[in-house]
Amino acid sequence: MHVIDIDDPLDPRLDDFRDLNSSDRRPDLPEGKGLVIAEGVLVAQRLLSSRFPMISLLGVDRRLDALREDLADSDVPFYRTSAEVMAEVVGFHLNRGVLAAANRPPALDLDDVLAGASTVAILEGVNDHENLGSMFRNAAGLGVDAVLFGAACADPLYRRSVRVSMGHVLRVPFAKVPEWPRGLDRVRRHGFQLISLTPNPEAVSLATAMTGEKVALLLGAEGPGLTEHAMRATDIRARIPMAPGTDSLNVATAAAMGFYERVRLT
Amino acid sequence: MHVIDIDDPLDPRLDDFRDLNSSDRRPDLPEGKGLVIAEGVLVAQRLLSSRFPMISLLGVDRRLDALREDLADSDVPFYRTSAEVMAEVVGFHLNRGVLAAANRPPALDLDDVLAGASTVAILEGVNDHENLGSMFRNAAGLGVDAVLFGAACADPLYRRSVRVSMGHVLRVPFAKVPEWPRGLDRVRRHGFQLISLTPNPEAVSLATAMTGEKVALLLGAEGPGLTEHAMRATDIRARIPMAPGTDSLNVATAAAMGFYERVRLT
Repeated sequence: MHVIDIDDPLDPRLDDFRDLNSSDRRPDLPEGKGLVIAEGVLVAQRLLSSRFPMISLLGVDRRLDALREDLADSDVPFYRTSAEVMAEVVGFHLNRGVLAAANRPPALDLDDVLAGASTVAILEGVNDHENLGSMFRNAAGLGVDAVLFGAACADPLYRRSVRVSMGHVLRVPFAKVPEWPRGLDRVRRHGFQLISLTPNPEAVSLATAMTGEKVALLLGAEGPGLTEHAMRATDIRARIPMAPGTDSLNVATAAAMGFYERVRLT
Repeated sequence: MHVIDIDDPLDPRLDDFRDLNSSDRRPDLPEGKGLVIAEGVLVAQRLLSSRFPMISLLGVDRRLDALREDLADSDVPFYRTSAEVMAEVVGFHLNRGVLAAANRPPALDLDDVLAGASTVAILEGVNDHENLGSMFRNAAGLGVDAVLFGAACADPLYRRSVRVSMGHVLRVPFAKVPEWPRGLDRVRRHGFQLISLTPNPEAVSLATAMTGEKVALLLGAEGPGLTEHAMRATDIRARIPMAPGTDSLNVATAAAMGFYERVRLT
């Protein structure tokens, strides 16, 4: 374990944790660092046992205690400080008392992710970080093998996604489907049936649709849903039976119904 | 329609909308007004067609336009103002551009709510306003007849719950189960089978449990779950098949799996 005490909030070793609310985490911009930030003991533990290369941790003594066993064989620096200094660095008071920063590992290859998988989710236009986080949490809980990204989705590694996912975005494999939606053929080539979720009452029920050996469930953003373009590239259109006069379910909840179909009798 | 233009943010007629973030909405405190606040056109519409007696609306001209038809036969005052004045009154900038305030109607009687119902949710210790809101949204979407409250739940009519529920907390009937958990006998007397949700792998699957003619699904807070006390008062203990090493699902999502069992083949 590599513990370093720091009292000065301006210490440059803490720069990766500075002004988290306003700092630029976007990897797609020239100046974007795109660091992955884990908040709290549980998510830091999940980050430690993930494929994401950890850079450092920042936290109070009590949280260091909680992580002692996890960090026993690690030489990643743990910057120990007070809650006050931490708040000054981060820009707000952080209940969870510990943060970990990691770099992004190389993107996973779509074919590698699909090999051996039998249930995957494919997202289009899901640009809400909380929904993405919930999606990964539900995917992990209900045993989904991977999440794939089509066009126009938000960054699943944004801090809020990581937090809402309870760190599962660091564990459930994800990959990009290139040339959307034509790239769906690559998913089909692995033997997957492509199922799009739609509010259309003429579609078959989700219960009927999710029975194949390998299924990929396509979901669009709450509100607009999947584009017709993407819908046409799928094999089956399925619906969740909804009460009349209500709104469509939150996209992560709708996905959970589909994931649940795969495990409900196990 | 009763439109009143107001330019002065200090006008006392706007007091029900003042400092929403810090104002006391708790009906259980001596000074608590416990007003119900709806945000946005859709939720205001749902409030208008609900059993909640509306007091007034505050909004910009564009939102008045959107509500013109809904308000045609109403004499509830619509205080029309600018976005700037509105922000000053409310204490923050409100994208949704319209607010409606209502009083709480008398609580519904448990027996009235249960008469004619076949699927209900019963909550214990669910004290997160967002989870409550999501619960009502899922209940509405999946055709649940009522939500019942056992001990230690938060106020479902808190502003954030109303918003997250998309107004469905104003439509799905809810009532309190008195003398928790003994009062569950009153639910049973209506012919309901009581099903508790538990992570216990020895429990039967939710799919097997939710098949009765009348079912009441009991859910506890994320984390602690149901108290043993409540669990013992139920007829069946059921589980959602979860992947090992993951966290339990969010309580509103877990509830949705149960609700979904009731409609998946419709």
